[in-house]
Amino acid sequence: MTASPRTVTADALFAGFDADLFVTDPDIIASYTRDRTRAYVGTPLAVARPRSAQELSALMIRCAELGAGVVPQGGLTGLVGAAVSDPDRPEVVVLLDRMNAIRSIDTVGFAMVVEAGCILETAKLAAEEQDCLLPITFGAQGSCRIGGNVATNAGGFNVLRYGMTRDLVLGLEVVLPDGRIWNGLRTLRKDNRGYDLKQLFIGAEGTLGIVTAVALKLFPRPSQVETALIGLHTVEDAMALYAMARRSCSDLLSAFEIMLRPGLERGLTHRPELSDPLETPCPVYILMELAGGDRVDLRALLESCLADAGDLLMDGVIAMNKAQAERLWACREAMVESQSRSGPYLRTDVSVPIAQIPAFLSAALETLAQSLPEGQPVTYGHVGDGNIHLNIVPPADWPVEERKALFARAEEIIFGTVDQFGGSISAEHGIGRSKKQAFLQRVDPVTLDLFRRIKRAIDPEALLSRGRIFDL
Amino acid sequence: MTASPRTVTADALFAGFDADLFVTDPDIIASYTRDRTRAYVGTPLAVARPRSAQELSALMIRCAELGAGVVPQGGLTGLVGAAVSDPDRPEVVVLLDRMNAIRSIDTVGFAMVVEAGCILETAKLAAEEQDCLLPITFGAQGSCRIGGNVATNAGGFNVLRYGMTRDLVLGLEVVLPDGRIWNGLRTLRKDNRGYDLKQLFIGAEGTLGIVTAVALKLFPRPSQVETALIGLHTVEDAMALYAMARRSCSDLLSAFEIMLRPGLERGLTHRPELSDPLETPCPVYILMELAGGDRVDLRALLESCLADAGDLLMDGVIAMNKAQAERLWACREAMVESQSRSGPYLRTDVSVPIAQIPAFLSAALETLAQSLPEGQPVTYGHVGDGNIHLNIVPPADWPVEERKALFARAEEIIFGTVDQFGGSISAEHGIGRSKKQAFLQRVDPVTLDLFRRIKRAIDPEALLSRGRIFDL
Repeated sequence: MTASPRTVTADALFAGFDADLFVTDPDIIASYTRDRTRAYVGTPLAVARPRSAQELSALMIRCAELGAGVVPQGGLTGLVGAAVSDPDRPEVVVLLDRMNAIRSIDTVGFAMVVEAGCILETAKLAAEEQDCLLPITFGAQGSCRIGGNVATNAGGFNVLRYGMTRDLVLGLEVVLPDGRIWNGLRTLRKDNRGYDLKQLFIGAEGTLGIVTAVALKLFPRPSQVETALIGLHTVEDAMALYAMARRSCSDLLSAFEIMLRPGLERGLTHRPELSDPLETPCPVYILMELAGGDRVDLRALLESCLADAGDLLMDGVIAMNKAQAERLWACREAMVESQSRSGPYLRTDVSVPIAQIPAFLSAALETLAQSLPEGQPVTYGHVGDGNIHLNIVPPADWPVEERKALFARAEEIIFGTVDQFGGSISAEHGIGRSKKQAFLQRVDPVTLDLFRRIKRAIDPEALLSRGRIFDL
Repeated sequence: MTASPRTVTADALFAGFDADLFVTDPDIIASYTRDRTRAYVGTPLAVARPRSAQELSALMIRCAELGAGVVPQGGLTGLVGAAVSDPDRPEVVVLLDRMNAIRSIDTVGFAMVVEAGCILETAKLAAEEQDCLLPITFGAQGSCRIGGNVATNAGGFNVLRYGMTRDLVLGLEVVLPDGRIWNGLRTLRKDNRGYDLKQLFIGAEGTLGIVTAVALKLFPRPSQVETALIGLHTVEDAMALYAMARRSCSDLLSAFEIMLRPGLERGLTHRPELSDPLETPCPVYILMELAGGDRVDLRALLESCLADAGDLLMDGVIAMNKAQAERLWACREAMVESQSRSGPYLRTDVSVPIAQIPAFLSAALETLAQSLPEGQPVTYGHVGDGNIHLNIVPPADWPVEERKALFARAEEIIFGTVDQFGGSISAEHGIGRSKKQAFLQRVDPVTLDLFRRIKRAIDPEALLSRGRIFDL
C-alpha cells in the first residue's frame, strides 16, 4: 500500500484498463501540468479520463494498490495550485471532462443533476432553457467545471442572494480514496438522517474524495434585472447604503459590488472607450443589482431605495436598458483586466465581517500607503459577502524579483490586517498550495488537529491531493 | 479511559467543581429524564449546568478520565430520544440553560451571536427588536434552545425561503469529547480555509461535540405578510400551483403548506368555533404566505399569482388582515392538535423529491387504506421542502397495545413507500434512538462506514451521546 510512487510503472497502472482511459500524447499531457498562474508545474504519472464513477472507482483501487497519488482536475481556474500535479511527487491526474452530462432538470422541484465534468456555463444555459436559474456566477464560468465548483465551494457575484456553492448542493456522488463509491446523489430538500456527509467533500479541494456527480438547487429565473452605479463619499456610506438596500429591497438584491476610485480609473485608462460612468468622480462606487420576476416593479423599488438613501449619495445612474447595464459592468471588468496589463500583480481574496469592511480597508490601505507607496492598490469586492479583493499593482517597469518582494510584503500587511479583524485569508479560492504556508501560520491547533483526524479517517494513506491545504 | 460508567461515583465526578455546577434535587433531576414522548426514561449519573465553555471543558475532561458518558440536552423537543439519558447506561446530562446570552446583533452584517442555551423565541424577539429576522420558525420555538436547533439541523415553516438551520449557521463554538474547545465562532459569509468543520456538528445530534455558542445569519424583517388559503382538486394541482407561485412571486414566497381534507375536518371538529374556511369543501388545501418589505405590492403579487392559476383553483380566500390570516393558520394548528385528542397516534416526518409528492402520497394512502382501514391518515406538510407528515390516528377506543401494532405496520408501509421514491424517513427530527432501527435497516454500508470513521476520528471512546443514530 505504501510503495513509493516513484516505483509505479505505466504498465502496472494501465494493465487491464481500456487503452483510451489514459492520455498518452505528451503535448496534451503538458497542457494538464500547470494552471494559468504557472506557479506549480508538475509532470503527472498519467492523465486519466474516466467515463463513469465505476471506471474511476477501478482506477482508484489500482492507485491505492500501487500507492500512487491521485489529483482530480476540473477547469484549472482555482489558481491556488490544488488541482495541478505535485511537482515533487508525480500523481495520476484525473480529468472529469468525459463525465459531463446533464442528467436531469426538475422544473417543479427546482433541482438539477449534472456530472462533475460539466462546464458551469453549460449547466447554467441548460437551466435557463427550462426557465430556471443556477445561480453560481463568476468570471471563469465558461471554463470551470461543476465538480471543481463543489470541491472549492465556489463563490462569485450572487452569493449575497443565493449563497455559496455549498448552499446550493443538494446531493453528491463521490469516489472515495479507497475506490468505493459513496452515493449521496439526492434532490431532497430536508434529510436529517445522521451526518450530512456531502458537507465533507464540498470545499475539501479534492483531498477527501473525487466528486463525480452533483445535485443542485435551482431558482426561478429572474425575468427582470435592474442595475445602478452609485458614487459615494466613503466606504462607511457604502455600508450604510447596503444596510438600507437590504431592508428596502425585500431580499431581491442580487449584487452589491464595491470599487474604489483608483481601480476604476485604471480600468478607464485601460479601456478608453468607456467614459467615466458618473459625472462626478467619487471615491467609492457601488454597482448594485436587483433581480426578480415579471410581477414586481423593480425599477420603482430601486428608485425608492435610492431616494431613501438621499444625502448619502454623491452621484448615481440607473441603467435604462440592458446595454447600459452591460456598460456599467464593463467598467468593473475593465478594472479587473487592467491589473495584469503591466505584468504580474498581487491578487488577494480576503473576507472580514461585513460591518468591519470600512475599518479593515482604512487600516490596510493606510499601512500599505506608508510602507509600500510604490504599489498601487486596486480595491473591489462583494460587500454582501464581506469579501474584498485588495490587489497590488507594481510599477510597470519593475522586474520580476522586485515584484515578488513587494508582493510578499504587501501580502503580509494585508493578511496581518485581516487577522486583526478576525477575517479569512481565503474567502473564495481555497488554500491549495499557494496559501498553505500563510494558512498554517495562522490556523489554531484544534482546527488543524480536526483536519488531520478527518483526513486520516477518510484517506489514511493520503493518496488524494496530498499536501494541499495541510500535511498529515 | 474506558472504566465502566457503572463505577463512576458522584464524588469522583464532582470533586473540585463548584457545588452548584450540578443539580442534586432528585425531583428536578427527574424532569430531565424524559421527553414528552416518554419513550426513553433514563436516570442520569448527574445533571450539570455549566456557565461557560471553559467550565464545560473541565467537566468533559473529567468525564473522559472517568469514562463517563455525556449527553447534551436542549429543550427536549426533538422527540427522537437523542437528548435524554440512556436508560441502559447512565450518562451525565449537560444542560446549556445557564449559557443563554445573546452576545451580539449586527444590523449591518445581518448576523447574531447567541449562546447555545438561548430559547429560540428569545433570540427571534431580540432580532425583531433590531428590525431583523431570525427565520427558524416552528411550533416548539418557545421551549427549544438554539444549541438543540443546531444539533438537530431544525427545519420548520420557512425552510422554503430561508433554508434549514444548517443554511443559517455562520459559526460555532463547540466543546469536543476530549474537552478541547473548538473556536469557529465567526460571522464571515465567505471563508474557504480548508474543511468547514462546523458542518460536522450541525445535525450530528450531539454525537460529535457540544455546541456552546452559535453565529447565525439574519435577514431584513418582513414588514408585510400576505396569506391565502387555496382549495384544489388534487395534490397534482397543488404541485402545479407551487411551480407557478415560485415563478410569479419572485422568491418572496415564505410558506406553502399542504393539508388534505380529512385532517382539516378533524381539526374543525376539534375546534368547532373555527368554521370551514372555504365555502366549497376541497380535497386539498394550500396555505400560502408571501413576505416582504414595505416597497413591494405583495397583495397585488398574490392576486396576480392566483389569477394566473385560474382553473387550477376550486376555491380560495386571501386574508384581508392579520386576524383573518391567524384564523387560517389556526385551522392548520387545530388539525395538528386534534390528532392527540383521542390518545397516542403515529407521527411521521418524511421527505421525497418535491415533484414526487403526488405519486408518493397516492401510493402511501392507497396502501394504508387497503391494509389498515382502521387508522385515519392525517396528512399535511411543507411542499417547498418535499416534507410530509403522514400521520395515523387510530379509533378513539383502541387500547395501547393495538395502537402500537397498528403504528408498527403503518410505519412499515409509509417508510417502504418513502424508500420507493428515494426519500428520507427523517426529514426534520433526526434519528436519535426512536428511528435508529429503521435507519440502520436502510442505510447503505458505505454511508454507515463513513459515519463510524467520523465518530471514531472525533470521539473514539464514544463518550458523547453514545448509541444515538448508530453504534460504533
